[in-house]
Amino acid sequence: MEKREMLYEGKAKKVFKTDNAEEYIIEYKDDATAFNAKKKGTIEHKGIVNNKMTSIIFALLEEKGIPTHFVKMIDDTHQLVKAVEIVPLEVIIRNTAAGSVCKNFGLEEGVDFDITVQEFCYKNDDLGDPMVNNSHILALGLAAQDEVDVIREYTFKINDILKDFFIKRNLKLIDFKVEFGRLPDGTIVLADEISPDTCRLWDKDTNKKLDKDRFRRDLGEVEEAYQEVLNRVSK
Amino acid sequence: MEKREMLYEGKAKKVFKTDNAEEYIIEYKDDATAFNAKKKGTIEHKGIVNNKMTSIIFALLEEKGIPTHFVKMIDDTHQLVKAVEIVPLEVIIRNTAAGSVCKNFGLEEGVDFDITVQEFCYKNDDLGDPMVNNSHILALGLAAQDEVDVIREYTFKINDILKDFFIKRNLKLIDFKVEFGRLPDGTIVLADEISPDTCRLWDKDTNKKLDKDRFRRDLGEVEEAYQEVLNRVSK
Repeated sequence: MEKREMLYEGKAKKVFKTDNAEEYIIEYKDDATAFNAKKKGTIEHKGIVNNKMTSIIFALLEEKGIPTHFVKMIDDTHQLVKAVEIVPLEVIIRNTAAGSVCKNFGLEEGVDFDITVQEFCYKNDDLGDPMVNNSHILALGLAAQDEVDVIREYTFKINDILKDFFIKRNLKLIDFKVEFGRLPDGTIVLADEISPDTCRLWDKDTNKKLDKDRFRRDLGEVEEAYQEVLNRVSK
Repeated sequence: MEKREMLYEGKAKKVFKTDNAEEYIIEYKDDATAFNAKKKGTIEHKGIVNNKMTSIIFALLEEKGIPTHFVKMIDDTHQLVKAVEIVPLEVIIRNTAAGSVCKNFGLEEGVDFDITVQEFCYKNDDLGDPMVNNSHILALGLAAQDEVDVIREYTFKINDILKDFFIKRNLKLIDFKVEFGRLPDGTIVLADEISPDTCRLWDKDTNKKLDKDRFRRDLGEVEEAYQEVLNRVSK
């Protein structure tokens, strides 16, 4: 399986065609960005950590009944996935207040929500990934209502699976972002990645941040945090 | 019926207690603000126009089955209303793209939505009235799910009634904002106002803006536009 034409280069990954029209290769990069790419840097070995972690978690989710684009890990930084068209939505779950929700609503970081918060953002760098609601999604033609419904259902189910998975590894899942894609027949599957780039994960006992906030907020020990999460996830 | 203690002074209205604990008096002011009060000014006779227009429209909506806080108009700038606790939500309907939705999503002003857009904002000046979705409303404790459901139902019904009412007066209802309140027994009723401050209204033939955008964007003929809308609404 070899990489052919590059289809897309994002902030953290490249996507390549393969000789099979139904499969792509994803290459995970060490590049890191934050605040809609206003802050840029590199996190050494991030590509390896995020590729390995995503491979473990997508396999777990498949096993638990969530369809995903994941086929197999090829090597340290490459993954074989099913070719999908990405639904231009960032789907966010918040179990605990952190990040933008604190800023937007004047909330204290670390307070658990009684009701799980679920947000959609329109994946559009030029517009700064603005938050959208169900009616915006339909009016802007980003997805159909039946797609929104299944995406919401999967995302809440993923939250239940991941909360349980992480807490057994002494990690608290504060919030996360996922993306979905459409297979050629229109089936919605989980795509993109699940990693310390896309999840806030705090050590259960110390509340130490073990995710991209260490990079965003210049907290130091960024590489160590990513590696620590992978070590726990690999157990 | 006399005004007693002032309970609240907002950007465009004052609310007073009366000798009856179940009724308040609202005084409509000529003060105008825009962009979360960053722009301030006065629109002569706005208080009269908005009081009269709201009185006409709330009576119409009551007649059509929407419960409201409206009791009666007292004089040119005063209204008697039922005492409610305001639900801290701005409930927005967008039939046509204009204002913030154009800025946020890169849309051209004046394009009709195929699907009616409905938004909630958290009524909180300090936070800049941020947009919220259903899960935020529940997690922040702004309203209960059954309240959200009835508020949405009423708001779409109000849109149908108002679109029809305005088009017969050669006015196109671009978008509007409403607020709701809770009676002491918890019943949700329409509150606040419906006026050129809270609706975008364009002349059907010329697309001339006949609403607060004339003030926001310094388009001139502000007072004339408010008066023109009242004239048409009074027919």
